[in-house]
Amino acid sequence: MTPPSQIALVPFVSVENMMRLVQRTGIETMLSALAAEIEADFIRWPLFDKTPRVASHSDIGVIELMPTSDGETYGFKYVNGHPANTRQGLQTVTAFGMLADVATGYPLMLSEMTILTALRTAATSAMAAKWLAQPGAGTMALIGNGAQAEFQAMAFKAVCGIREVRLFDIDPAATEKCARNLTGRGLTVVPCHSAEEAIEGAQIVTTCTADKQYATILTDNMVGAGVHINAVGGDCPGKTELHRDILLRSGIFVEYPPQTRIEGEIQQLAPDHPVTELWQVITGQAKGRTDARQVTLFDSVGFAIEDFSALRYVHSRLKDTGLYQNLDMIADPDDPRDLFGMILRAG
Amino acid sequence: MTPPSQIALVPFVSVENMMRLVQRTGIETMLSALAAEIEADFIRWPLFDKTPRVASHSDIGVIELMPTSDGETYGFKYVNGHPANTRQGLQTVTAFGMLADVATGYPLMLSEMTILTALRTAATSAMAAKWLAQPGAGTMALIGNGAQAEFQAMAFKAVCGIREVRLFDIDPAATEKCARNLTGRGLTVVPCHSAEEAIEGAQIVTTCTADKQYATILTDNMVGAGVHINAVGGDCPGKTELHRDILLRSGIFVEYPPQTRIEGEIQQLAPDHPVTELWQVITGQAKGRTDARQVTLFDSVGFAIEDFSALRYVHSRLKDTGLYQNLDMIADPDDPRDLFGMILRAG
Repeated sequence: MTPPSQIALVPFVSVENMMRLVQRTGIETMLSALAAEIEADFIRWPLFDKTPRVASHSDIGVIELMPTSDGETYGFKYVNGHPANTRQGLQTVTAFGMLADVATGYPLMLSEMTILTALRTAATSAMAAKWLAQPGAGTMALIGNGAQAEFQAMAFKAVCGIREVRLFDIDPAATEKCARNLTGRGLTVVPCHSAEEAIEGAQIVTTCTADKQYATILTDNMVGAGVHINAVGGDCPGKTELHRDILLRSGIFVEYPPQTRIEGEIQQLAPDHPVTELWQVITGQAKGRTDARQVTLFDSVGFAIEDFSALRYVHSRLKDTGLYQNLDMIADPDDPRDLFGMILRAG
Repeated sequence: MTPPSQIALVPFVSVENMMRLVQRTGIETMLSALAAEIEADFIRWPLFDKTPRVASHSDIGVIELMPTSDGETYGFKYVNGHPANTRQGLQTVTAFGMLADVATGYPLMLSEMTILTALRTAATSAMAAKWLAQPGAGTMALIGNGAQAEFQAMAFKAVCGIREVRLFDIDPAATEKCARNLTGRGLTVVPCHSAEEAIEGAQIVTTCTADKQYATILTDNMVGAGVHINAVGGDCPGKTELHRDILLRSGIFVEYPPQTRIEGEIQQLAPDHPVTELWQVITGQAKGRTDARQVTLFDSVGFAIEDFSALRYVHSRLKDTGLYQNLDMIADPDDPRDLFGMILRAG
């Protein structure tokens, strides 16, 4: 067979190449760059084609497709959520995604997104906190020390200037793993024995636990005046982390209300409970934090535009890094109408 | 870096390997096998998770995601439709797809689907005609001789026993290409100079043209008693091939009414115009053709379950053919909670 033409080839970023990209770039630089990309896309939010993710639920998990488009580039992510996977030594969340050219429909890049999702989730959290947390916030409690935890810590250091992280997980081994990975990275790391201990002196509280059930990681009395809560773990129907009373006294900021009302912490509230869209804070169309005593809550569920921003960042780095391989994924007969003839001639 | 573990690897079927699979299997054998797989999945139709495709429209085309699941396996297809692509030497339709394990959310296979979509579309058409056309139908008119045409001809030969195809396209070069590709494949091939000439003596009329606009490939006076119309080309809003009067006197059979009412020929009719779901004909729950004089119409737009069947067929052949390569697509840290540590250690 003759080798496929250039147009038939789609650059693919493997897990190995994504790890190399993070290593070569430096994790803090990459998290800052991703936060900047995401912020830039939040600024042009109204321009995007937005739909709630398309979910296929089963008893033990969910598989989702998250598409979006800015009119020039189209992107989507495939992502699963299977909390019981860890018991078999599998990831709870795995993902891959792609970008395509809106003008032709041809794929531009296919990429692993398990690592990239972890990075973009943390970058989005930190970008939101930059707008919502008290200026000068230096200490973050990190409750839930699983796969997302270290990414959150490093993103808040890189983007918000956090200096201390206070760790708690119901499994001490998770806290130990997290503390070990964060050693020597310029953060004061304080492992704690309870959520109450972790939140002591913290201006930012990040919750990133993973159980698919209504959980109460934070109760009302634990949240002091002026705290910014970054609620990451609650991201599907039936999966929440905060007591309802906290929500009732917080300024609530969300990505895309139609999705967050189904998947976020605010699924516990009336469907017309007031929330503010984060993009409107960034563009100055809505108010962020009102005063130093307000409790602010970023009820994050993850939205397709964040994946789009992350994929575009990776795509922009392909040429300078060469960290990809070409996949023969698009059938490209010399005469586009002669697909059948191409198969015959391949014999 | 250490090589990725088996669990991180996803079998990928490239365009080259798909062509080899068709060659090794034989195109008629493969079309028959696909028709059988699709028919088997139509029999268990109610069991599938069904949603209309998720479309992102632009001025010049559409990009769609088509997911479905049978509760054990999940599948989706990415597919574009850009009629103007051929002017740049690109395919109108390109596609790829994947299967995943519902229990874990892990991908099972990634595959090119430009060729596979052409095969499954033809296999579905022929399977439907087996149920709807007059018994013993031996001649098919094939109007529109583009990329899909030869697949239709071979599928109708393999599945329905068609012996003669009568070709017409407004572009004589397309007809010539189609006739050349079909030479020596056991069919009598008759190139024609008009649609009227093509339908002479044909018990089956297949329309597979590609313009994204309301077109009238067949007018009412052209369709005689007892003919089965296989309308393939009309598959999105604003894209139809048949005059409305034909629809009004035909028994209309569809894949999934919520999708076909938007995308199929029946977008020209009232939203409650009676149609029959093909799966109900196959399971005996609904009547197919009522008599030898009835005009039957398969208003085909392509549904996710057909892609699912086709992907499952390809997946079932991976082991015996070895026609795939492994992609390092799933991040797989030894401790699933230690994604960050995996990146650090890769350095």
